[in-house]
Amino acid sequence: SDTIHLTRGLPVPQGISKPAFLAAIDDLKSALGAEHVQLNDTEIKNGWYMEHPNTHDMMPLFDFEEFVASAVVYPSCVAEVQMIVRWANKHLIPIFPISMGRNLGYGGAAPRVRGSVTIDLGKRMAKILSINEDDFTCLVEPGVSFYALHEELQRRGLGDKMWIDTPDLGGGSVVGNTVDRGVGYTPYGDHWACHSGLEVVLPGPDAQVLRTGMGALGVGGENTWQCFPYGFGPYSDGIFSQSNFGIVTKMGMTLMPNPGGFESFMYTFPNESDLAPLMEIIRPLRISNILENVAQLRHGLQTLSVKGHPRTKYYSGFGPMPDAIVRTELEKTATGACAWVYYGMSYGPAPIRKLKLDLIDSAFKQIRGAKKIDPATLPADEYFWSRDRIASGTPDLEELKWVNWMPNGAHAAFSPVSPIRGADATKLYELAKKRHMEAGIDLMPAFCVGLREMHLIVEIVYDAADAGMRRRAEKCLRDMIDDAAALGYGEYRTHIALMDQVAGTYSWNDHALMKFNNQLKDSLDPNGILAPGRCGIWPQRYRNRGWEL
Amino acid sequence: SDTIHLTRGLPVPQGISKPAFLAAIDDLKSALGAEHVQLNDTEIKNGWYMEHPNTHDMMPLFDFEEFVASAVVYPSCVAEVQMIVRWANKHLIPIFPISMGRNLGYGGAAPRVRGSVTIDLGKRMAKILSINEDDFTCLVEPGVSFYALHEELQRRGLGDKMWIDTPDLGGGSVVGNTVDRGVGYTPYGDHWACHSGLEVVLPGPDAQVLRTGMGALGVGGENTWQCFPYGFGPYSDGIFSQSNFGIVTKMGMTLMPNPGGFESFMYTFPNESDLAPLMEIIRPLRISNILENVAQLRHGLQTLSVKGHPRTKYYSGFGPMPDAIVRTELEKTATGACAWVYYGMSYGPAPIRKLKLDLIDSAFKQIRGAKKIDPATLPADEYFWSRDRIASGTPDLEELKWVNWMPNGAHAAFSPVSPIRGADATKLYELAKKRHMEAGIDLMPAFCVGLREMHLIVEIVYDAADAGMRRRAEKCLRDMIDDAAALGYGEYRTHIALMDQVAGTYSWNDHALMKFNNQLKDSLDPNGILAPGRCGIWPQRYRNRGWEL
Ligand SMILES: Cc1cc2nc3c(=O)[nH]c(=O)nc-3n(C[C@H](O)[C@H](O)[C@H](O)COP(=O)(O)OP(=O)(O)OC[C@H]3O[C@@H](n4cnc5c(N)ncnc54)[C@H](O)[C@@H]3O)c2cc1C
Ligand SMILES: Cc1cc2nc3c(=O)[nH]c(=O)nc-3n(C[C@H](O)[C@H](O)[C@H](O)COP(=O)(O)OP(=O)(O)OC[C@H]3O[C@@H](n4cnc5c(N)ncnc54)[C@H](O)[C@@H]3O)c2cc1C
Repeated sequence: SDTIHLTRGLPVPQGISKPAFLAAIDDLKSALGAEHVQLNDTEIKNGWYMEHPNTHDMMPLFDFEEFVASAVVYPSCVAEVQMIVRWANKHLIPIFPISMGRNLGYGGAAPRVRGSVTIDLGKRMAKILSINEDDFTCLVEPGVSFYALHEELQRRGLGDKMWIDTPDLGGGSVVGNTVDRGVGYTPYGDHWACHSGLEVVLPGPDAQVLRTGMGALGVGGENTWQCFPYGFGPYSDGIFSQSNFGIVTKMGMTLMPNPGGFESFMYTFPNESDLAPLMEIIRPLRISNILENVAQLRHGLQTLSVKGHPRTKYYSGFGPMPDAIVRTELEKTATGACAWVYYGMSYGPAPIRKLKLDLIDSAFKQIRGAKKIDPATLPADEYFWSRDRIASGTPDLEELKWVNWMPNGAHAAFSPVSPIRGADATKLYELAKKRHMEAGIDLMPAFCVGLREMHLIVEIVYDAADAGMRRRAEKCLRDMIDDAAALGYGEYRTHIALMDQVAGTYSWNDHALMKFNNQLKDSLDPNGILAPGRCGIWPQRYRNRGWEL
Repeated sequence: SDTIHLTRGLPVPQGISKPAFLAAIDDLKSALGAEHVQLNDTEIKNGWYMEHPNTHDMMPLFDFEEFVASAVVYPSCVAEVQMIVRWANKHLIPIFPISMGRNLGYGGAAPRVRGSVTIDLGKRMAKILSINEDDFTCLVEPGVSFYALHEELQRRGLGDKMWIDTPDLGGGSVVGNTVDRGVGYTPYGDHWACHSGLEVVLPGPDAQVLRTGMGALGVGGENTWQCFPYGFGPYSDGIFSQSNFGIVTKMGMTLMPNPGGFESFMYTFPNESDLAPLMEIIRPLRISNILENVAQLRHGLQTLSVKGHPRTKYYSGFGPMPDAIVRTELEKTATGACAWVYYGMSYGPAPIRKLKLDLIDSAFKQIRGAKKIDPATLPADEYFWSRDRIASGTPDLEELKWVNWMPNGAHAAFSPVSPIRGADATKLYELAKKRHMEAGIDLMPAFCVGLREMHLIVEIVYDAADAGMRRRAEKCLRDMIDDAAALGYGEYRTHIALMDQVAGTYSWNDHALMKFNNQLKDSLDPNGILAPGRCGIWPQRYRNRGWEL
């Protein structure tokens, strides 16, 4: 069912007694208003994507009660965020900020440390503070979703003039996705590279608030805050991404000018072995920007699963679904039987697009059996049109459908980075295949080609109610991380449960980078209250005390 | 003359006795070899750009002996850099790293603290460690200049396949320019945004060395180090730019694929008042990448001065040269009489260029009297061809010529950032004009249009041997910084003598950003040995003790 009773009761954070914790919560209620602090002591609800919980991960990889908040607090402004930080320092209570908490596949809304107090920034801090039509920029609070930003552009009649960039699901937070260094599919897909300016509350006892870049100017900083990311002196934004060094309360984002036209295209490739030569073809086209957006090269099985039917519709045997069945089923669809599907978009006025599309066509057709699918032949509900919307900056939800593959469908992602090379693609694909085979899990890989690198995103879909399958999924993930590390590949992002392991692979020179991260952590957060363990960074109070997973 | 006798003798750093300092230097000599440590105790030489000094600024804004090194040390490898850092920690001697020390206009090779020991990284660490033809990336040491990298590409027969991006002068260091967040003029002009991966020696007593991004992987990091800048966890590269938090010993850089064609163009505009409407025309063209490189809109006087003749050829009165003379002199040149010159380049195959150039032409021609100069009419030694080389990635030296405007020509730059707006351009231009008028200095402004912002670069050319003129130049710079700050503009980079003032304008919320910078400084460099005062960041041992200027 949707509601889960907390059998272990209120998850009081370690190191504080229950009465002391409850007294601290009462303090917080007096400061912010009782209605803005919710104790999490009886039951949690899973909801669905658009009504997701903020107390835990609705798609848990461990038991639901493992990564769970003791309370959720809803600040309405920066001063209240500062108040919460001071409160946490006073009581030594771990706090975990989320913008919206839709980080599905990477831990959802769950805090890394059981019993943390989750700061749900998005609920009451959800203003679009500015949209600048001249500069093609905006300034947003954590609660602004990709949907909300897109709708506001339409509402102001600016939808034709400028685009947002959206990840595959539009319900996430612009701030939350960007600070986790998420990606989208227009030429503005590298969200971190496209942001400009942060406002950050620091985790120290005095909860200082600073603005980065031009926002630090004493007078008039807002004029250039979103135009020029760097400012003067050390450029500190980066250390507030994928970290636990600060709470981001405002972020500037650039918007993409309408390119003057766009056109999606789709190619299919018949054989698994086409992967390597195809990557060699894609690389130079992508680096020279003839392929202009984050290319998605997906395995045929994902094209099947995104139709939204349960796996059992096609197959109910144990172990990965046999290839022959995937092909037979794909045969009945618009793509036809194939091993790989490439989804791309060309931008600009028609004559410019044509020059690029012709180049792409003759390059892709070097693969024997490559087929360009004519969009005119595709029905309106074909997944192609979802990619078309996303690559032109319109948020969408279609992508959720492959989660239906399993009952109680949950998923967790394995996301290693590699050069755009045939040999690398093959090695990663083979190791994923081997580990999926061992785990008896269907392999759904998508190669997302950035500019000079690709992220392989392997989405493991599992039955969240099946503890055995959760363990198999976790083992498969951990094995892939280790295998990849041994071959020289590292993850760009990971699930909260896997952060220690992934951080551990970045071990050059006796873990020099982690020692450096720890040093910054201890300086900025001496009481170790902010998101302990996030990205493998543990504050002194927790370090080497058995918290690492 | 070229040689200056050090009347004040050996500039022993404050806080250590001369004998103790000399003993420490002897230690260093034993460790690195006596020939790799040079004491600076008798005379300094200015040389010229390509044989520049590493002991001081060859274009000083103060007295030559003010910002001067006590010694220069030449490490040959990372381990020796670490050795020097440990040595500095032991003896509490300030060290100042330079890659090549050609930071002219911003302090040259001079250390901020008189008597610092300069680490000249570039002399013996000048290897191109790799050029990757497939990924269009390279990995370089501090001593690799833009010229050297360009020549190596030619030597390997890769010159037609990939380009470097170069600043206006090609003799600088790729690493040094990039860590100071310098800019160039191809679409890869934002050097910081185009780098990928650093190796850094930290300033603490144990002189840890770390690699950022994918370089931190325990195994095989070099495969992806230059392909993907971020890695996993906090992205820390930014805090090593424009700072004194670490010594960069290796840096990855991306290279631009040959765009398949290029074409320079030049427009002139007759009136000073064309500036504002022109900026309004440039902004949307630049943001939508129809203008594809960092646009330079230069004042006519700079087009005259870059011919390399002394000012006295045209005028020898006091105060700024009258406009009428500038116009008359320009009349005799290829541009004709004009107030502004725009230099741009269009990239790609001819039909794509044509589409863009036609759009640009009809937009620019909205300015009455706008004139496109046909390159075919220009002689080979016209400055236009220097811009053509630079915007297509070929290093050059022509730009040095305007320094000849004054005898003993030196210059210092005022570089405020603003949105790309007519109103902002006008305000900045007016304030610069007023202050130049007061100081009796010729105004040579160039608006360098980034993507959503422009840097106004005002190059003050002065006679370095004329103490009175140096003081006027400094006053003019300081007045402009203050005026700009009051209007909401901040500098993107500045001269070592002006760093405290500029950093002071970034004062939002009671100097929260500087407090944060200071906190990082104290954590990473507890003995305060690395480049004290750079970018206004003073370590604890120096802070509020009268060092600020
Ligand atoms: C089917 C499917 C497809 C997906 N496709 C994509 C995709 O294409 N691209 C992609 O990037 N992701 C994708 N995801 C993952 C995820 O849904 C998105 O990244 C989503 O935007 C993240 O959730 P959020 O924006 O609500 O961020 P949050 O959950 O609010 O934030 C993510 C994490 O960042 C930190 N954080 C958030 N806000 C702050 C703050 N203000 N201060 C400090 N730290 C903060 C927290 O640790 C938090 O856990 C996909 C997921 C699914 C299920
Ligand atoms: C006529 C003229 C035109 C110019 N045009 C341009 C232009 O178009 N674009 C532009 O950007 N600049 C320009 N400049 C300024 C300057 O010449 C260049 O930026 C030059 O590249 C900087 O010198 P450098 O590369 O030798 O760097 P360095 O002098 O080696 O470094 C600059 C500073 O960075 C720090 N630093 C350097 N290396 C390291 C390291 N390894 N670790 C830690 N800190 C380090 C040091 O504090 C140093 O002082 C121009 C100058 C002149 C005179």
